[in-house]
Amino acid sequence: MTALTAPPSAPLDPDGIRAAVDAVLYAFLDEQEQTASELPEITLFTGLLRNMLAAGGKRIRPLLCVTGWAAITDQVPPPALWRVAASLELFHAFALIHDDIMDNSDTRRGLPTAHRAMAAHHRHRPDADTLGVNTAILLGDLALGWSYELLHADDTPPAWRRRAWKLLNALRTETLVGQYLDLTAAGDPSADTDTAWRIIRYKTAKYTIERPLHLGAAPADADPAHLRSLSAYAIPLGEAFQLRDDLLGVWGDPEQTGKSTLDDLREGKHTVLVATALDRATPAQRRTLNDFLGDPTLDRTAADALRTVLITTGAAAAVEQMITDRLHAARRALDDSALRPAATTALRRLAASAATRAS
Amino acid sequence: MTALTAPPSAPLDPDGIRAAVDAVLYAFLDEQEQTASELPEITLFTGLLRNMLAAGGKRIRPLLCVTGWAAITDQVPPPALWRVAASLELFHAFALIHDDIMDNSDTRRGLPTAHRAMAAHHRHRPDADTLGVNTAILLGDLALGWSYELLHADDTPPAWRRRAWKLLNALRTETLVGQYLDLTAAGDPSADTDTAWRIIRYKTAKYTIERPLHLGAAPADADPAHLRSLSAYAIPLGEAFQLRDDLLGVWGDPEQTGKSTLDDLREGKHTVLVATALDRATPAQRRTLNDFLGDPTLDRTAADALRTVLITTGAAAAVEQMITDRLHAARRALDDSALRPAATTALRRLAASAATRAS
Repeated sequence: MTALTAPPSAPLDPDGIRAAVDAVLYAFLDEQEQTASELPEITLFTGLLRNMLAAGGKRIRPLLCVTGWAAITDQVPPPALWRVAASLELFHAFALIHDDIMDNSDTRRGLPTAHRAMAAHHRHRPDADTLGVNTAILLGDLALGWSYELLHADDTPPAWRRRAWKLLNALRTETLVGQYLDLTAAGDPSADTDTAWRIIRYKTAKYTIERPLHLGAAPADADPAHLRSLSAYAIPLGEAFQLRDDLLGVWGDPEQTGKSTLDDLREGKHTVLVATALDRATPAQRRTLNDFLGDPTLDRTAADALRTVLITTGAAAAVEQMITDRLHAARRALDDSALRPAATTALRRLAASAATRAS
Repeated sequence: MTALTAPPSAPLDPDGIRAAVDAVLYAFLDEQEQTASELPEITLFTGLLRNMLAAGGKRIRPLLCVTGWAAITDQVPPPALWRVAASLELFHAFALIHDDIMDNSDTRRGLPTAHRAMAAHHRHRPDADTLGVNTAILLGDLALGWSYELLHADDTPPAWRRRAWKLLNALRTETLVGQYLDLTAAGDPSADTDTAWRIIRYKTAKYTIERPLHLGAAPADADPAHLRSLSAYAIPLGEAFQLRDDLLGVWGDPEQTGKSTLDDLREGKHTVLVATALDRATPAQRRTLNDFLGDPTLDRTAADALRTVLITTGAAAAVEQMITDRLHAARRALDDSALRPAATTALRRLAASAATRAS
């Protein structure tokens, strides 16, 4: 795997990190095709993964993994760290593929979702839609398996492996049980903000921010205080990130987010936004929320009625304030930390972009 | 993990091996529950896996893994080998859970399949069936991730890890692409026996027999001739095993197989049995096959009409002969091998049971 290990030109240049991680991923997919030469059908799967990677994505988890390393040491990250970073992105591809099936989503990163692409590939079949879902389940399974396969190489120090696998096991359980909480809370609008916050904690804050930072920092011999500082930054930032995502899910520009502004409403996604609106709603407003949220046939008029209630209850403004508070807390955690300045600068930049991001 | 490593009383006693593997699995699930104490929802998932394991299953892959080791050496298998054996069973649980979703099966090992059990758990919800499928996808994902998690422990020698992961990567790709071949060939009855044999090779013969034997033999320092002997036994035995399974899928006793004799016919499963029947059918017989195979509403009368054609074309008898020939070839491979007698005795016993098995 020596060809895969070139570090990016500047340690914390986001474009350089993305390019280095993508190089590891593409080389890994090449390797899988070569290894499975008796099974040329594999290229349907690797091809879809390549398309998904090429279509975009912020590579936020790999970026944070490399930043976590740089928060502890100024040494150049070793090859094993690039594999962990790339593994997080392949795990994320798995999570998106299976989530999109569960949410019955049509588009992702401006492209058809994996199950829609697979259905299109088998469009001559009478059962194309079912076959699309089933083969996309397989694609997700392959991506999940490969996300672990990618971690193995002879040069990985045993101490690393122990730490990385422990964190990856936690990340997997948290993400999948977080998705379970999300699925079971959806379609049943309620003012239960506790559950909405738990979903954010496990499905986003830990999965997207805290665990990737720890996965970079732990192998650099981070001490417990470092890890606590990273958590104190990660959890509020992750919360802010998801709260922004929930607002974009209702008011975002589909050209920029790559997904429809009807999906979350049709799914009846249980968010802090919705729980807050229900908590503050008048009986008439509550009726609108209960009637339309989770209606899979919701049209634009009904969506606009929901948007009006989310604004007039003050829920949207309250969520904006929660985002501001959390970004403030995340920045303060960096001020109070003993993390290295190169990393805290990058982490501050990320927090700023989370505040204003449109996709 | 020291508590998990007690070897069974006699090296190749199947009941002892099953008990030792189950002990590793149950202890691992306990450990996952304890680790995820903030997420009590995890017990829904671990509970379903426990039920599935307790309901039966032959543990054939773990048995073959331990037998592969014993084919090369008379040393007691080390803890790492028990983890590999248990990992194969957890991977198999994953494969069954996702396959049952794809095949829309209702029962497995005499119990409701995972997605039916999950739907029953959420029966108060209007979307219980969809939620059942989606949460069972998550259960499969957890089992798949855990099958790799289970392999890690400080005492695993690096040379082992390299060999095991290489074989596990091949096993995963073969199984998932084999399932893809199976899915895309189903519902489209044809006389294409080549595809039917390819499905058997990847979805069963390599996955169930060859790779598990190699996963046991390779870490015992098997030389290439040993591995070739194991393959020469494994592939024909795996073929015989699947051919028998296809016959049982149509004529088996649901009390013993744990699944309905309508599932394969309704799914229009592309088997050597069906391909052979189509190849030999008269125009009238071909019409019956094309009309009824893959009809999801197929009733008992139509199923009987299909059974009659599968017999009167001579396809069922031809498949019986193929089984006999393959079991003969598998036994001959053992005669010609330098594998250790304790193992070849066990492998002969397995071949004999494959010939006559009813479940």
